Amino acid sequence: MSVRVVVNGIGVIGKRVACAVKKQKDMKLVAISDFMPTSTLRTLLEPKGPLYKTDLYACSQEAVKNFEGKMYIKGILPELLHSGEVDVVVDCTPKGVEKLNKPMYEAAGVKAIYQGGAKADIAPVSFVAIANYEEALNVDAVRVVSCNTTSLVRTLYTTDQAFGVEEVFASLIRRATDPVKSDKKGLLNAVVPEVKIPSHQGPDVKTVLPHMNITTIAVKVPTTLAHVHVVAGKLKKSCSSEELREILRNGSRIILLKHSEGYESTAQIIERFRDLCRPRYDMYEVAVWEESVTVNGKNFYWIHAVHSEAIVIPETIDAIRAVTGIETDKFTSIEKTNRSLGIEH
Amino acid sequence: MSVRVVVNGIGVIGKRVACAVKKQKDMKLVAISDFMPTSTLRTLLEPKGPLYKTDLYACSQEAVKNFEGKMYIKGILPELLHSGEVDVVVDCTPKGVEKLNKPMYEAAGVKAIYQGGAKADIAPVSFVAIANYEEALNVDAVRVVSCNTTSLVRTLYTTDQAFGVEEVFASLIRRATDPVKSDKKGLLNAVVPEVKIPSHQGPDVKTVLPHMNITTIAVKVPTTLAHVHVVAGKLKKSCSSEELREILRNGSRIILLKHSEGYESTAQIIERFRDLCRPRYDMYEVAVWEESVTVNGKNFYWIHAVHSEAIVIPETIDAIRAVTGIETDKFTSIEKTNRSLGIEH
Amino acid sequence: MSVRVVVNGIGVIGKRVACAVKKQKDMKLVAISDFMPTSTLRTLLEPKGPLYKTDLYACSQEAVKNFEGKMYIKGILPELLHSGEVDVVVDCTPKGVEKLNKPMYEAAGVKAIYQGGAKADIAPVSFVAIANYEEALNVDAVRVVSCNTTSLVRTLYTTDQAFGVEEVFASLIRRATDPVKSDKKGLLNAVVPEVKIPSHQGPDVKTVLPHMNITTIAVKVPTTLAHVHVVAGKLKKSCSSEELREILRNGSRIILLKHSEGYESTAQIIERFRDLCRPRYDMYEVAVWEESVTVNGKNFYWIHAVHSEAIVIPETIDAIRAVTGIETDKFTSIEKTNRSLGIEH
Amino acid sequence: MSVRVVVNGIGVIGKRVACAVKKQKDMKLVAISDFMPTSTLRTLLEPKGPLYKTDLYACSQEAVKNFEGKMYIKGILPELLHSGEVDVVVDCTPKGVEKLNKPMYEAAGVKAIYQGGAKADIAPVSFVAIANYEEALNVDAVRVVSCNTTSLVRTLYTTDQAFGVEEVFASLIRRATDPVKSDKKGLLNAVVPEVKIPSHQGPDVKTVLPHMNITTIAVKVPTTLAHVHVVAGKLKKSCSSEELREILRNGSRIILLKHSEGYESTAQIIERFRDLCRPRYDMYEVAVWEESVTVNGKNFYWIHAVHSEAIVIPETIDAIRAVTGIETDKFTSIEKTNRSLGIEH
Repeated sequence: MSVRVVVNGIGVIGKRVACAVKKQKDMKLVAISDFMPTSTLRTLLEPKGPLYKTDLYACSQEAVKNFEGKMYIKGILPELLHSGEVDVVVDCTPKGVEKLNKPMYEAAGVKAIYQGGAKADIAPVSFVAIANYEEALNVDAVRVVSCNTTSLVRTLYTTDQAFGVEEVFASLIRRATDPVKSDKKGLLNAVVPEVKIPSHQGPDVKTVLPHMNITTIAVKVPTTLAHVHVVAGKLKKSCSSEELREILRNGSRIILLKHSEGYESTAQIIERFRDLCRPRYDMYEVAVWEESVTVNGKNFYWIHAVHSEAIVIPETIDAIRAVTGIETDKFTSIEKTNRSLGIEH
Repeated sequence: MSVRVVVNGIGVIGKRVACAVKKQKDMKLVAISDFMPTSTLRTLLEPKGPLYKTDLYACSQEAVKNFEGKMYIKGILPELLHSGEVDVVVDCTPKGVEKLNKPMYEAAGVKAIYQGGAKADIAPVSFVAIANYEEALNVDAVRVVSCNTTSLVRTLYTTDQAFGVEEVFASLIRRATDPVKSDKKGLLNAVVPEVKIPSHQGPDVKTVLPHMNITTIAVKVPTTLAHVHVVAGKLKKSCSSEELREILRNGSRIILLKHSEGYESTAQIIERFRDLCRPRYDMYEVAVWEESVTVNGKNFYWIHAVHSEAIVIPETIDAIRAVTGIETDKFTSIEKTNRSLGIEH
Repeated sequence: MSVRVVVNGIGVIGKRVACAVKKQKDMKLVAISDFMPTSTLRTLLEPKGPLYKTDLYACSQEAVKNFEGKMYIKGILPELLHSGEVDVVVDCTPKGVEKLNKPMYEAAGVKAIYQGGAKADIAPVSFVAIANYEEALNVDAVRVVSCNTTSLVRTLYTTDQAFGVEEVFASLIRRATDPVKSDKKGLLNAVVPEVKIPSHQGPDVKTVLPHMNITTIAVKVPTTLAHVHVVAGKLKKSCSSEELREILRNGSRIILLKHSEGYESTAQIIERFRDLCRPRYDMYEVAVWEESVTVNGKNFYWIHAVHSEAIVIPETIDAIRAVTGIETDKFTSIEKTNRSLGIEH
Repeated sequence: MSVRVVVNGIGVIGKRVACAVKKQKDMKLVAISDFMPTSTLRTLLEPKGPLYKTDLYACSQEAVKNFEGKMYIKGILPELLHSGEVDVVVDCTPKGVEKLNKPMYEAAGVKAIYQGGAKADIAPVSFVAIANYEEALNVDAVRVVSCNTTSLVRTLYTTDQAFGVEEVFASLIRRATDPVKSDKKGLLNAVVPEVKIPSHQGPDVKTVLPHMNITTIAVKVPTTLAHVHVVAGKLKKSCSSEELREILRNGSRIILLKHSEGYESTAQIIERFRDLCRPRYDMYEVAVWEESVTVNGKNFYWIHAVHSEAIVIPETIDAIRAVTGIETDKFTSIEKTNRSLGIEH
């Protein structure tokens, strides 16, 4: 039996989640839902689009008029949720809207997956598959943490399991905005610091890994491709640089790429995923520059890149399995998701 | 029977040509060839890569040592060309190298397709499918013109057929470099004019459309996504803006996108092709902003975008059919190519 | 006797106008006025700032509270204007605000200079010094046209006087925003066309040069330094490229810079004015790339750069002289302004 | 008596040093020297240029021919150095050239100041005025450390004096290139990490502050305005955030700017120095975002900006005084330099 999924909010994350759900053998994309017609919706639903023939719903009664005469909608989301035909709704609406939606999901008795823009208290569990899949089993709602936090949890969890992490400091060099918004929210020839220290990602890591002693500072730079993290920390147990590389190389949804083989910047990393013909060049993995992984005594360092548009997609798929309980083993869920999306491990 | 094709030079254009050849029912990709191992070659040939199991050749005896101990090569290109197992070589080597390769291709009696970086005299025919497919039938060599020239020929040929074009002036706002090279050949917060007027694209259009009265001026700007052309001209026969839009809308490999539907910049245009899951988000079509198509008396204007990495790929495939004569009707070849690449018309 | 000037609105243009007024022997900067305290105001008024000890006024009674406890204000603008101590107010407020201010200026019987963001009907005369200084003599209000329009009027007026201009087409490659706003209104790796053709600058040129037959099309690109115009047109009387260069070289507030001497992009042009130690590197002149000035039969072409922050400053100073009638000869006013700002001719 | 100074190499740093030397009452700019004519040299030496009438020398006999027929040179540098009319040469030649020049300076018995691109062993002392002025007194040669290192030394020395610094980790978010080179060495929409950890700046700090326990990691981003450093460390003696702010606020050549007063990015910081009419908007100070200065237990953090073109200029002037011994007190030299350049403390 398939889990029946609706995606509400078809933006940068929502469209990817919807496409990913369609690729799961144990899931069915019942419908997508949005507030108004957009070029994105039109493209996804046209004959050559990846969601052709998917049912479109207005997210509310108020939104119906936005679609009139422009795009066909099958109905409104609250009614669909109450129909008994939906098991899980993935909320990918803009930051702040999710908490307005929460009562609607709860009233309908539908499980909900929220994204990392939401505050931690939106759901009982903040989630990264490899770190705490079990905690999300059969709960009513889960929050998949943000792209930056996901990348830190994956790599630090992996390091911590092997050698213990005493403390961590990470500088987050953030991409200014998503490529599609770069003409409206762009940044040009300047660097924008977040002067409140620590930035929110450090505390956010602790919603998944409560014992991690981490501080983060963030600056925004004029690029759209990917975030870059400079990570520095102290291990509990010393190891060699090569040992840490090996641990990371085998970590879940982590890849190591060599600067010496041509991965000199985020440009060539993204080009790799264009060349692999990943849809939308999505890099679901954290990409760590292999040579940057350095251990000196108990101090460790590395630099990694985060494709902000894509990294949380596999976690969202796993979260659907966890909350519905259709798969109780985390490794089996991760493996299913990975295979469907072309992720190697 | 399939045309047997080798692609020499696996960079931005070559890798796309190789992938496109693999999608043609009437062609066979015999091998790819290059000068040295690159991250691109490695990615293309790995198990999840689009050219997995394709034979790799060194482009010359001198190049063999570059691959030793790094990537397996099956042999060297000159020997392969002389083996009688290749009908056409597509030369996608860096600008200036193609003329060094020409004697090798001629000595082997293999037909050759060159790219637009080559000078016009490299081949007897400069080529854009819709404009002069017939001229390329069964010739020994063809030069597919550059991305900018291709976009101008497609749109101006179409306009000229319908209303006659008296004269044209185009300003080319060029992307600085390809995305993958943007950390090495980037441009940052400046605009670079080509002060020699006209720029080479105007004369280049005439290699395909000899009677077109065109002048071009080019400037380079800090973007990687696409070139943008501002086109202004005079028609021989007046028409309405809507009539010209209709003609362009039906033109070969031309699409009209509406600013009012969300295509406000090159960012949303490229995002469309990411959402369509085109490999590497390749836009093979010229994208004209619909509202910009304006006719005032006999004066006409429009603005179009050119995906420099991709636009010449379908022309290259058609050129292979033309030089080998396996398809003598241009519309049939164009239709085959379009269907294989997901182009609508 | 000095003309007594107030500048209302201390943003990118207003701060420059205020500093330029201070440099005029026949003018006195009575005060500056603004809506709220900003880092700009603080910097200008600090001991090392260029407007140290200048009186600051709130632009209205409503604005007073914005300054309370933050910056000292001497009073409110309407009262100052009615005091009889002001001859001219230069309105540099954000687009759309100037028309709300107009009644205040008129009620006080103070002459007003508006900027090019205002609609043409804000004032009886739209102004570029070399083209129509005389029309502005002793009128009540003048609108100094925008940076792009100013550059076109200067160069086309000069060309027209010498050879006659039959028609003109200009592509405007616009800087995305001012440097100081580039973290809020930036543009990143995309090109944004204005799809309504013609763009407003063409008609705007005609507010100064009514008989000029001009069409403009604009696109926005990710740069902050300068606009670049690609100009193409037809002369009434043929001439050589060198003759047109000579005419432009001698034109008012036009400079010719050679690509071959290192001016390869807008970056080196701006660096020239940094090296000349112009305040804020302001380039008041239109900079034409010398080699780009090309005449072919009666067709002419050139490429020029416009420092959008600075080009209208000398025109604004001249406009003050014109409306007050303290200088009736345009060449004398231009010469005074030029000398005070370091402009050569 | 004035110290007689020659500047060799008139690029981004050299032109600023020459202009700064001219402003010192106790120094005389004897000449400037370069390898070939450039637009920079032409601009500096034209009548409105800041070095008008300064003597220009070819840097060597071989360079003479580069100037022939292009720019007047008074002679060649080696002869000038041997003439007895020069006390100090400031070498601002491209990285790697300085070590070829060293024997020339030594043979002439002229003291030499090198820049931070040189290796530390070029001179017996690596120099930041506030940290080790005394060590440079009367030595034959001094190396002024690089812009990034200078900013770290100034701030960490200041912190260390007050509270003791146990260890430091800094992430350097580097501007891609200087504004004037951004069309040739630009970077566009990508982030480039230095994968060798630590980057060279950490060890370089130790050439001035040998006991500082510091590690640095650097990434390059698409901006020209300024470097940004994210600094994290541990104090020996705890203090409050406000105490550390106060110490930094009073540090030599350090300024604190408030995000809350409009300094939201490097764009507004640079704009401040444009508004102050600093030549070329040069910011000689390290600018620390005030709100970012945070102490938590013994952990401290801040974010600062470094104007790479300008920060080493005052140090270079101080170095001239130190090596010649005309001023033996560091605070007096710093005060003289500061006053001449408009630096407050």
